[in-house]
Amino acid sequence: MNFSFDVEKTDPSGGRLGRLTTPHGTIETPVFLPVGTAASVKALTQEALEELGTELILANTYHLYLRPGHELIRKLGGLHQFMAWPRAILTDSGGYQVFSLSELRKVTDEGVRFRSHLDGSEHLLTPEKAVEIQLALGSDVAMVLDECIETPAPREAAESAVKRTTEWARRARRYFLDCASRNGNLPQWQFGIAQGATFADLRRESARRLLELDFPGYAVGGLAVGEPHALTCEMTGEVTALLPPERPRYLMGVGRPEQLADYVALGVDLMDCVLPTRAARHACLYTSEGRVLIKNARYAQDQQPIDAACSCAVCRRYSRAYLRHLFAAGEITAAILATHHNVHFYLDIMRQIREAIEFGNLAKFSSAMHARYATGPS
Amino acid sequence: MNFSFDVEKTDPSGGRLGRLTTPHGTIETPVFLPVGTAASVKALTQEALEELGTELILANTYHLYLRPGHELIRKLGGLHQFMAWPRAILTDSGGYQVFSLSELRKVTDEGVRFRSHLDGSEHLLTPEKAVEIQLALGSDVAMVLDECIETPAPREAAESAVKRTTEWARRARRYFLDCASRNGNLPQWQFGIAQGATFADLRRESARRLLELDFPGYAVGGLAVGEPHALTCEMTGEVTALLPPERPRYLMGVGRPEQLADYVALGVDLMDCVLPTRAARHACLYTSEGRVLIKNARYAQDQQPIDAACSCAVCRRYSRAYLRHLFAAGEITAAILATHHNVHFYLDIMRQIREAIEFGNLAKFSSAMHARYATGPS
Repeated sequence: MNFSFDVEKTDPSGGRLGRLTTPHGTIETPVFLPVGTAASVKALTQEALEELGTELILANTYHLYLRPGHELIRKLGGLHQFMAWPRAILTDSGGYQVFSLSELRKVTDEGVRFRSHLDGSEHLLTPEKAVEIQLALGSDVAMVLDECIETPAPREAAESAVKRTTEWARRARRYFLDCASRNGNLPQWQFGIAQGATFADLRRESARRLLELDFPGYAVGGLAVGEPHALTCEMTGEVTALLPPERPRYLMGVGRPEQLADYVALGVDLMDCVLPTRAARHACLYTSEGRVLIKNARYAQDQQPIDAACSCAVCRRYSRAYLRHLFAAGEITAAILATHHNVHFYLDIMRQIREAIEFGNLAKFSSAMHARYATGPS
Repeated sequence: MNFSFDVEKTDPSGGRLGRLTTPHGTIETPVFLPVGTAASVKALTQEALEELGTELILANTYHLYLRPGHELIRKLGGLHQFMAWPRAILTDSGGYQVFSLSELRKVTDEGVRFRSHLDGSEHLLTPEKAVEIQLALGSDVAMVLDECIETPAPREAAESAVKRTTEWARRARRYFLDCASRNGNLPQWQFGIAQGATFADLRRESARRLLELDFPGYAVGGLAVGEPHALTCEMTGEVTALLPPERPRYLMGVGRPEQLADYVALGVDLMDCVLPTRAARHACLYTSEGRVLIKNARYAQDQQPIDAACSCAVCRRYSRAYLRHLFAAGEITAAILATHHNVHFYLDIMRQIREAIEFGNLAKFSSAMHARYATGPS
């Protein structure tokens, strides 16, 4: 068995300390996945990711399917070899990107027909196709295709999406197990995704239906898309409360630094978000004192590091004044250094969260984080 | 004495093996300077530059004067501290950028009046001001302000530019020595620049006038701006033949990979060029087999490194197929990896050139380089 998940300790608040073992390394959970949309975490080399201690990244099925194409990646030995990344990779199903990026999408029971945002070419993504693409990519963890809907969603739309997501999950699971049994051994882990918008009963319904399909891991999708944080937490909790404790849970697309511990306290083990990388490219830096908008004139002569409490390579060497200058001058190196720092900051929060669980004081850590980020950026 | 230059060996072809000592390290010459226009070599961190073995970089007085301003850099401890680069820095005088980038420039004997390309603000750059800015930056080697003219230049314009460049060099030298004597010790080395367009007698005249001012090093400016390579070499040779052998010579703004050894054979010790970094950002990679335009469809499935003969971190890890994908997807990491490789390639040529001088076969090395780069890019 190449895959396993073990919960080693549970915090009084509900946070879990665990280990996710994959053929590409063992990951300490709770873990944050930097987002490598097109087989690259923007502005970071794979060497930098390793230096940062990244154990698991997310790549986007939608993007890689369209460019360079999953068949090409399969031919070149899979995604790990293609991008020279020997550690673990999780791929999403493409569902979210089809709904947020593509044009003229049309959802039927069969799947979703859409036009590429790159060249307008027409494609049909089905639950089976999403499995096939991810098997070609050879990621360690694959996600089933789900129907993502706009929020806030009327109840009827949410009900229909749960129904379709359930049926698609069933087809995806069957197709995946067929492929896997043909291969003889399990090439990857497949996770189901619970939908249900902001309706607690639909979230529970979605989770229960997924449980029948016996996935090795479960995700919560369609959240953190504009609704209040408390609602994100409530919906997440509805799902995780029903999930078997021995299987990993993945909350997709979250979150802000001060929110991560809250999700962990709800029993979440995996999280991913573009925030640290995207914010970095927009000159927003995360620090132990809150957000720093480094383009601000107040930093022009500031010889301090981005965060005096940070041990990253950028904070050990460069000043705020220099970072500000690089952004003002439009230098590529601005994005490199800012991204490095922000990803380090997120991974460091996760280290602190794991330590807090170890010592049983996750709730205290969470309060401290919220207090630090209560004020606006400086 | 913080500065010195020693020629250790001379090749039969005229190439010199030397050591340039500065307060920020000793540089083996001939040396190629990566260009760090705005206090950053585009797409490379200072860590990467160190890893590449860079001993000396070039920064642009014009750009740093306009943004973030030399007074700010002085206040923050000088350019080395500002950009966290402990190794040597050479700054140009800003002359070339004023002529190529700024608007509404007007040259008088006093200096050159221009409008910033950033915000249209009006500035006056004089020989004294160029000295002052570079002293504020605290670079190891500073250049005098010269008058750059368009090429091909009519003889009359070239004559007038040589005359003015000579007079400006005289003022710059006097002002610099005044400042230096006030400081008690020599804060940097100041190099003169020979002009003269493509007129051999004017080049010689310019060099002779500079020699009277007793600079510790001499540069050849205004070449490699469109004229044939043979003419660049001829003009360079006219100048270097007159220069004292014990002082370093700097050929500004060159060159292509296959041309570097030719300049070295003419007695050149320092060279700088945006080519390796700029070409990298445009997906043009330099290899031992010639140029590789990595966006070409032929590389889509190419699992080889950029250059099988290259030992750089990029060639040791990534494939051409992945590089091509990164450029196609517009990923920042494309620029990072390509720049890393190209700068390594240039620095490696210089290592090979120094080795060739050591063994007395620079001419042979030069022929081999020209043969490799005789065909177009692939």
